[in-house]
Order: sequence, then structure tokens, then C-alpha cells
Amino acid sequence: MSILVVGSVALDSVRTPFGEVKEALGGSATYFSTAASFFADVRVVAVVGEDFPEEHLAFLRSRSIDLWGLKRVPGRTFRWTGEYGFDLNDARTLETQLNVFAEFHPDIPEAYRESELVFLANIDPDLQREVLAQVRSPKLVAADTMNFWIDRKPESLRETLRSVNMLLINDAEVRQLAKEPNLVRAARTILDWGPTSLVIKRGEYGALMVREGGWFAAPAIPLDSVFDPTGAGDCFAGGFIGYLANTMNFEEANVRKAIVMGSVMASFNVEAFSLDRLRRLTYPEIESRYKAFRKLAHFEDL
Amino acid sequence: MSILVVGSVALDSVRTPFGEVKEALGGSATYFSTAASFFADVRVVAVVGEDFPEEHLAFLRSRSIDLWGLKRVPGRTFRWTGEYGFDLNDARTLETQLNVFAEFHPDIPEAYRESELVFLANIDPDLQREVLAQVRSPKLVAADTMNFWIDRKPESLRETLRSVNMLLINDAEVRQLAKEPNLVRAARTILDWGPTSLVIKRGEYGALMVREGGWFAAPAIPLDSVFDPTGAGDCFAGGFIGYLANTMNFEEANVRKAIVMGSVMASFNVEAFSLDRLRRLTYPEIESRYKAFRKLAHFEDL
Repeated sequence: MSILVVGSVALDSVRTPFGEVKEALGGSATYFSTAASFFADVRVVAVVGEDFPEEHLAFLRSRSIDLWGLKRVPGRTFRWTGEYGFDLNDARTLETQLNVFAEFHPDIPEAYRESELVFLANIDPDLQREVLAQVRSPKLVAADTMNFWIDRKPESLRETLRSVNMLLINDAEVRQLAKEPNLVRAARTILDWGPTSLVIKRGEYGALMVREGGWFAAPAIPLDSVFDPTGAGDCFAGGFIGYLANTMNFEEANVRKAIVMGSVMASFNVEAFSLDRLRRLTYPEIESRYKAFRKLAHFEDL
Repeated sequence: MSILVVGSVALDSVRTPFGEVKEALGGSATYFSTAASFFADVRVVAVVGEDFPEEHLAFLRSRSIDLWGLKRVPGRTFRWTGEYGFDLNDARTLETQLNVFAEFHPDIPEAYRESELVFLANIDPDLQREVLAQVRSPKLVAADTMNFWIDRKPESLRETLRSVNMLLINDAEVRQLAKEPNLVRAARTILDWGPTSLVIKRGEYGALMVREGGWFAAPAIPLDSVFDPTGAGDCFAGGFIGYLANTMNFEEANVRKAIVMGSVMASFNVEAFSLDRLRRLTYPEIESRYKAFRKLAHFEDL
């Protein structure tokens, strides 16, 4: 089944204690679609400028990602510059140049409007609704958001959430959005606003899914070589939604597997800068790491 | 099998956003032994002052905890005063009165020296070694420590670790002790110093065990009513070591169950101030929460 993703395609300059890259391939739609491409067909709606390197488009095409909805327009591509300290948790944004992204309004090609799964990356919630107004009865709408939109457009975000089935969000943002320090109560508040599932990303601590049926805690695999956390959340989303698109089974047991697959994809991505680890990733490696997650988290009944 | 625990028995005054208690029963040996008493015989070596309320001793005896090694000496009991903010993570210590604990040297009764399992709570590593000098070939020695000793007595702590099988420690302390920001590399460094297992406590994120055979990530159950985290780490240790004493099976699969049992006991303890939740806890409740942990963490093979 096909996934439609709307988000950013960017050039990132990133510094971590382990090195740096300049104007490397980045952006939420890029990370998401590359991770999801291991499992399903992905269609990208995004915008780049005239300066966007052809080799990056060639890479995305090599992953069989449909770029019909990726517009190239006059101007410069969206650029992000950030750095991470030793704990590799929060990124410190040094510079954001919106460039062609400032005037971006998603225009969903006719052929994309029947997509079964839609992923709204962490763009302006107004734009997220513009996407939803153009698609026809998708089976699953998943959305990401970030502290920037929770601060600036909380009402618009609440409006978008009414039409979202699954919200992917980190734990600080859950508390911020619900204005409630207790995670359980905060999650329940947000579920009252529309989504049927909340997938709470917790970085090195894994992920937590909340749905009516209960909670699922997925571990994160301890890694001895984390080079760059940029894009980990989008790779998580790509593995998660990609696996759901591949199986089209939204029952609890399968959604749990999908969450773990998201964690698997994120765990690979942080092992190198930009998309470099995913470029050389193979499906047997994915299966093998999924098994490592099983071994990590398994324990028996009393 | 019997567990010997050496640690503090204290009177705690604690304030959290949800209320406060003054001079309530506390201390690492108290929390540990109460949690462990649901699974095994526990012997306590500690010291209290003349002012220590008889009702607290009666409670510990009601849990069948052996208090032969608990000395009552002239002076006041150890007192700790602390508070927690809304996130309930780090305690802020407002006052520590060592009182009779200042001159404490563990004197292990002859009848305790054959204990099969020894738990050294987070006391001075010099005292931890004084305990080990008095016991005869225990099958398992587990120890806790804290940032205070890592800062002030790193060499003494390293010396103690040579004789410790399992070190229980939180994740910030793992990094601090090994002087290494990456958790995996930090854990490997500490394992080189003596312990065969490291049990890394991560509060609301669960626990992580590292041993030669690999890693185990135990979840923490999301709770909507966390009142007071004081003693959670010691209740974790009590459930963990208690379950091991009960089963005397140190194989990987059983140690994993024991870790989850530690998490179960900690999850109950934080639901009320002081020992109040454990006072009214029943074994069927423990079994039922263990099942909830299984449901929380379970996912299937691909």
C-alpha cells in the first residue's frame, strides 16, 4: 500500500562531538521516506530550490521513492544548521533558513489523493490540514509535531488533531501540549482531542504507545556508536508507518511490531551522519536487529 | 535463602507537589528489607537512636524481618529532609542529619555471617568493605552506590567493586563513575573492574541489565499517581534480590524476571509516601502487576 508524506527536504549542517557535515541531505520527508522505502511505496510532497543537488534526487529515486510531488522552484533550498552536545539529546539550532519552504503550500497530485496512509511530518499545523483537505478517505493519518508549533499555534494543532489517527510526539511535548506534568494523564488528555493512538518517542529510552487497549513500551537498543541523532524521529516514523503499510494490519499485536520496526530504523540512522547508514542498509540487517530488540526486551511469565 | 542488608534506617521528611510527610519511616535498609520481605528472609544491620519510634520496629517485625543486627544507641536517629519538583526525578536534599549514623560501623552478628545473599545499600564504600570482611562466601553480593561516593571516594568504591557481583546504579552515575558519556562503553568499563552484572536504574524509563550474555531492558509501568519517589531504588533492589533469594537461580531468564520484580516493587512504592503502599500490599497484587509489565513490554517475532 502507498504512503503519502508531506514534509521538508533540506540541506543540513550538523556538528556533534564526533564530527560534522556541511549541507548534507536532510529534512523530515527525506528521512521518513528513505526509512519507509524498505517496506512500502512512498510518495513525497515537498519543495526544493534550484540549488538542490541532483545526486540527492537520484538517491531517493534509487530507493524507488515517488518524487512526482517534489517541486523544484526558483530560490534556495531549506537549510538547517544545528549541533549536539555529548549527551546527544536535544539539538541546538544555530540557524534555520526557510528559503523556498517559507512559501510552501502542499499541492497533492491527483494520483496521490487515494493514498491509503498519510504521514504529516512536523510542518505548520495549518499546512497539515491543507494536506488532509486534499486526500480522500485514507485508512490511516499519522502526524508528527514539535515544541515550536505547540508554542505558537496550539489552537491550529488541536484542530488538526481532530482528523489524525496517530500522533507521534516526544515525551516533553506530550506534557507541554496537554499542560500536565504526569505523562499518563497528559496522554489521556490528548487522546480526548481526537487521535486514537499516541506514540511517544523517548530517544535513548525507546517509545511508548498509548491506545484504548493499553500501553506498549518498546525498548531502545543501547548503542556504543551514536554519531548523529538528526532524523531519528523521522526514521522511527518511516519504519513504523512503512511496516503498517506493508502489512495493512492495525491490530494491537501488529502495531506493536511496527513500533519496534520504527525503533530499529531509528537505531540504524543514528550510527552515521545524514542518511549515510540507511544508504548501505540491507533488509537482512533490519531483520537481524529486530531480533536483537526481541532478545533485549524479552522476559517470561512468573 | 536469607539476605543480609546493611544500610540506613531513618526518619524522612519529604515534600512533593502532592503533599508532605514529617519524620516518616525511611532509609535504604528499611525500603530494601520491606520490599524483599515479600519473597525471602531478611536480616538488617543498621543503627537507630533512642528516639526511634517503637511502632516502626513493630512494623518491620510484622514483615518477619530479622532485626537482631539493628542496634539502638544513645543519640538521635539519622534524619533526611528533601523535596521533589513536578517531574519527580531528582530529589533536592534540604538537610541531612547523620546523628547516630555518623559513627556507624557494621558489626555483623555471628548468625548473619553465613547469609547467602548480601545487599550493600548506598553507604560509604569503606563500610561496604567492612561488611564483606565479616561475611563468609556469600553466593551473591549486590551493592548500590550514589553520586556522593563517586565524587568523594572513587578509589575506595573501585576497591569495593572488586568483590561485588552486581552493581545497582542509575544511568547518570554509570557515566560519572566510568567518566564516559556513552552508556554502553561506560558499562563495559565498570564491568572490567569486577562486577559480572550491572543493573542500571532509569526511573520512569525502567531498568537496563548488562552482563556478559548481553543486555536486558525492563520497562517501567506508566503510573498516573506518583506521589513520592523516595525509596524507589531500594524497593527495586529489594524486589530484585528478594526474588533471586526466593528462587536461587542466577540464570539469565530468571535474573530477567527478578529485574522485573524489582520494577514491580518500585512501582508500588511510589504510589504513596514513606512505606505506606507496601504496608497494605498483598502478594496477589504483586502477581497482577507483574502480568501488567508482561503485557506492557510484549511483542512478537516478525
